[in-house]
Amino acid sequence: MLEAFDLAGRIPKGQYSSIVEPLEARTAELQREVRKRGKSVIIVMEGWRGSGITRIINLLQPVLDPRGTRIHPIAEPNDIERDHDMFWRFWSRLPSYGQTAIFDRSWYTSTIVERYESDRMDEIPGSCIEDINNFEAQIISDGNLILKFFLHISKEEQKRRLNVIKDSPFTMQARYLRRKEGIYVLNRDFFMIDRMLMKTDMPASPWTIVEAESMKYGYVRVLQTFNSAVECWLTEKEGGKKELGQTYLIKTMAETEESSILKKTDLTKSYTRPEYKPILQNLQEELRNLQVEIYNHKIPVAIVFEGWDAAGKGGCIIRLAESFNPRGYIVEPIGPPNDWEKMHHYLWRFYTRFPRKGHITIFDRSWYGRVLVERVEGFCSESEWQRAYHEINVMEDELTREGTILIKFWLHIDKDEQLRRFEERQNTPEKNWKITEEDWRNREKWDQYERAVNAMIRRTTTIQAPWTIIPANNKYYARIAVLETVRSAMQKRLKEMK
Amino acid sequence: MLEAFDLAGRIPKGQYSSIVEPLEARTAELQREVRKRGKSVIIVMEGWRGSGITRIINLLQPVLDPRGTRIHPIAEPNDIERDHDMFWRFWSRLPSYGQTAIFDRSWYTSTIVERYESDRMDEIPGSCIEDINNFEAQIISDGNLILKFFLHISKEEQKRRLNVIKDSPFTMQARYLRRKEGIYVLNRDFFMIDRMLMKTDMPASPWTIVEAESMKYGYVRVLQTFNSAVECWLTEKEGGKKELGQTYLIKTMAETEESSILKKTDLTKSYTRPEYKPILQNLQEELRNLQVEIYNHKIPVAIVFEGWDAAGKGGCIIRLAESFNPRGYIVEPIGPPNDWEKMHHYLWRFYTRFPRKGHITIFDRSWYGRVLVERVEGFCSESEWQRAYHEINVMEDELTREGTILIKFWLHIDKDEQLRRFEERQNTPEKNWKITEEDWRNREKWDQYERAVNAMIRRTTTIQAPWTIIPANNKYYARIAVLETVRSAMQKRLKEMK
Repeated sequence: MLEAFDLAGRIPKGQYSSIVEPLEARTAELQREVRKRGKSVIIVMEGWRGSGITRIINLLQPVLDPRGTRIHPIAEPNDIERDHDMFWRFWSRLPSYGQTAIFDRSWYTSTIVERYESDRMDEIPGSCIEDINNFEAQIISDGNLILKFFLHISKEEQKRRLNVIKDSPFTMQARYLRRKEGIYVLNRDFFMIDRMLMKTDMPASPWTIVEAESMKYGYVRVLQTFNSAVECWLTEKEGGKKELGQTYLIKTMAETEESSILKKTDLTKSYTRPEYKPILQNLQEELRNLQVEIYNHKIPVAIVFEGWDAAGKGGCIIRLAESFNPRGYIVEPIGPPNDWEKMHHYLWRFYTRFPRKGHITIFDRSWYGRVLVERVEGFCSESEWQRAYHEINVMEDELTREGTILIKFWLHIDKDEQLRRFEERQNTPEKNWKITEEDWRNREKWDQYERAVNAMIRRTTTIQAPWTIIPANNKYYARIAVLETVRSAMQKRLKEMK
Repeated sequence: MLEAFDLAGRIPKGQYSSIVEPLEARTAELQREVRKRGKSVIIVMEGWRGSGITRIINLLQPVLDPRGTRIHPIAEPNDIERDHDMFWRFWSRLPSYGQTAIFDRSWYTSTIVERYESDRMDEIPGSCIEDINNFEAQIISDGNLILKFFLHISKEEQKRRLNVIKDSPFTMQARYLRRKEGIYVLNRDFFMIDRMLMKTDMPASPWTIVEAESMKYGYVRVLQTFNSAVECWLTEKEGGKKELGQTYLIKTMAETEESSILKKTDLTKSYTRPEYKPILQNLQEELRNLQVEIYNHKIPVAIVFEGWDAAGKGGCIIRLAESFNPRGYIVEPIGPPNDWEKMHHYLWRFYTRFPRKGHITIFDRSWYGRVLVERVEGFCSESEWQRAYHEINVMEDELTREGTILIKFWLHIDKDEQLRRFEERQNTPEKNWKITEEDWRNREKWDQYERAVNAMIRRTTTIQAPWTIIPANNKYYARIAVLETVRSAMQKRLKEMK
């Protein structure tokens, strides 16, 4: 979940006060509302060492009513805490109804991070995940709200900051820097933290990843999330609905989606036809050989193609499929569900099509329809598509844990290129079948789709199953990039098996 | 969860038809209703080998509409299934909306039981539990209903049956009997199965333990559970409530509670005063020494007293406390929560009072108030106390896993004895303070309390934290039994540590 984040977010110069002040006023107001309703808000602050947890809390503190807020810095357990079970000190610190508690580090650091030994564990112990999810479920089903933030900075930025901190006499971090270096500090265990976030990103208590290279930007994100989450949660309470608090996600995520991942993609990359031909041929030959090895090693491979209309998915799939022996692969074109498929869980038709060992399944569109077209066109409810991120992560985690290589492509073109291609299709008789009224209608909703794509990439990029964004304004470049990505994923796995 | 079941349940002679026929008619009717609503019902049948899963399914089959029902016998995976991940074959078998699927064995047998190796694992891998809970959550949040049955028979009965099966040429069980003997068959792994049931007894997909020594009795229980669960679930759907289906538990459990555990207690056990005195003294001395050992080994001990009004909790606690060095124990009398406690999660005031390592906490009444007085008097909602069984199990599991010895007593007297004691209190000036109007009011609700106590013992008796029912009509006997239980729990743990 961390990889998909762009850390360059900044508040435009001179605008900080005008953005932050109304947000702070609203935060204070909402906290007063919370007190009146008699339920509590628990804010969890986690992040890389040096990501600025303390600084953000210091900014937040004067905004909140001190009579209604308590900050809990979680360091080493004291003797009495050590004499109780792991969660005792968090239970004892739970706020009373109406109060807000801010945990500066929390049960994530103390039960997972500090216990995890990368040299002895392949995976976070399932019982840790179980305990945390149980703990949070107990709090939430009692009617309270949990907000979880992970402050994210790049390795380079972290290095720079820790160097400053190290030399500063006014910091309490020195002690930490010596412990568990591999996980939070510099030589950081990205894999483990990403897994931790993914596995505990529950529908009722999701993580908000905060880009915190700029403190101001990070703080604004925290305020925005707090405000929209609390607003939704209070509205829900008013309506007397007893749902598990899922819907408060909706606004939170909407705001997260503003900073676009897609916009950062460099669409100028290209190959000429003479460059393209020989590279393609070589790649296809390599893939043919790799398929045999994959088959022999009994590795299942699932390749997902998503992208804008006319982005060239079909062309890529043909070049990819040509490489393979047809006995070992299948292409699954995914359209709207048929009547029989509609009679099942939306994931059912994909589950049943997953590749068996040694086989390759290419999905031309996929289960991501749930958070793209179904979301934008309103074919499912908000709480359904919101829940889908977690459901999809869970499904993909199961798949990849059992050994499937899962490759996910988003073929990206810009709006002008799409127009050019649409018009070409319209005007070329033999391509005319490729364009329908629906394509033009979808095009009108470009911005909505873009938000949906950004959210999808953010929330479903995991270490095991990341998204690859393919710049596809130039078709040759796109095809080569796709084949190269598949090749290196296969090579990597085969290497691991040796 | 298994230990608290009395397996002697039988349908009274001659009444079977008159009980079963209306139930079957209702089952058929409800299934037609389910079809109309367009959501599916998934019935999971698990149980000891030889517990009669097939026979119960054979009884159920003609009742259900064959066009709307499919039975899935789950044996070894075939080649294609083996080539996919563990849950693929269950996803593929999920019924379409409106249909009912009966799983004859299920993901429990294939992911936990068949993978579990008692000699290599201390505990069911957390990832198995996580996968199962995720899988069921996906199905349930899609609006479907899962009913899980575990058919329970005694070891003796199993032995008898397997001997018959073994010699029968018309059975498919022979193959199973050779595999995984330790878990389901005879030398059965009670601990593991009990843990499995407890950890997957989710509020939205709880287990129903079926006493299956008598096939007729078991079948009636299955029908009753099906009917009441489906009724509640359909009602919920109608109301348009989107809760996670918790409330359908209510009726199911109400029926489970009918066969009383308490009624089986032998209340005639007694000691005379001359018998009692020396035994007590010896026990107290032993306990004093054990406390020192417990302290040295840093073992936390929590002792819970629940019981009828005037059952003699106070007297037992005094005798127990006398045994201990006061530096190492504390008695926590639990009354109605005070204002500050009411401002927290109902478990908070107990969590924070749990003993630290090496210390003993005696709870005079406890968190079980949630499913006793709060349930009967309506101080919490039905869905709150229904959820509490799971919440309490989760909490106690965490406690005991971290090393706490947890001992839970129910002091049992009969209604006549209570009356005698109430009157004595009323008529003895120095005991008069012990009796209030409230005691008389509670007494009027004896039957309601009895149902609540039975349900509590059923659903919260786990291997790690079982209930001990103390026959307390004779106070001397009760006190001795309490002290003996504490002694042997401590001795057992100390022995394990050596």
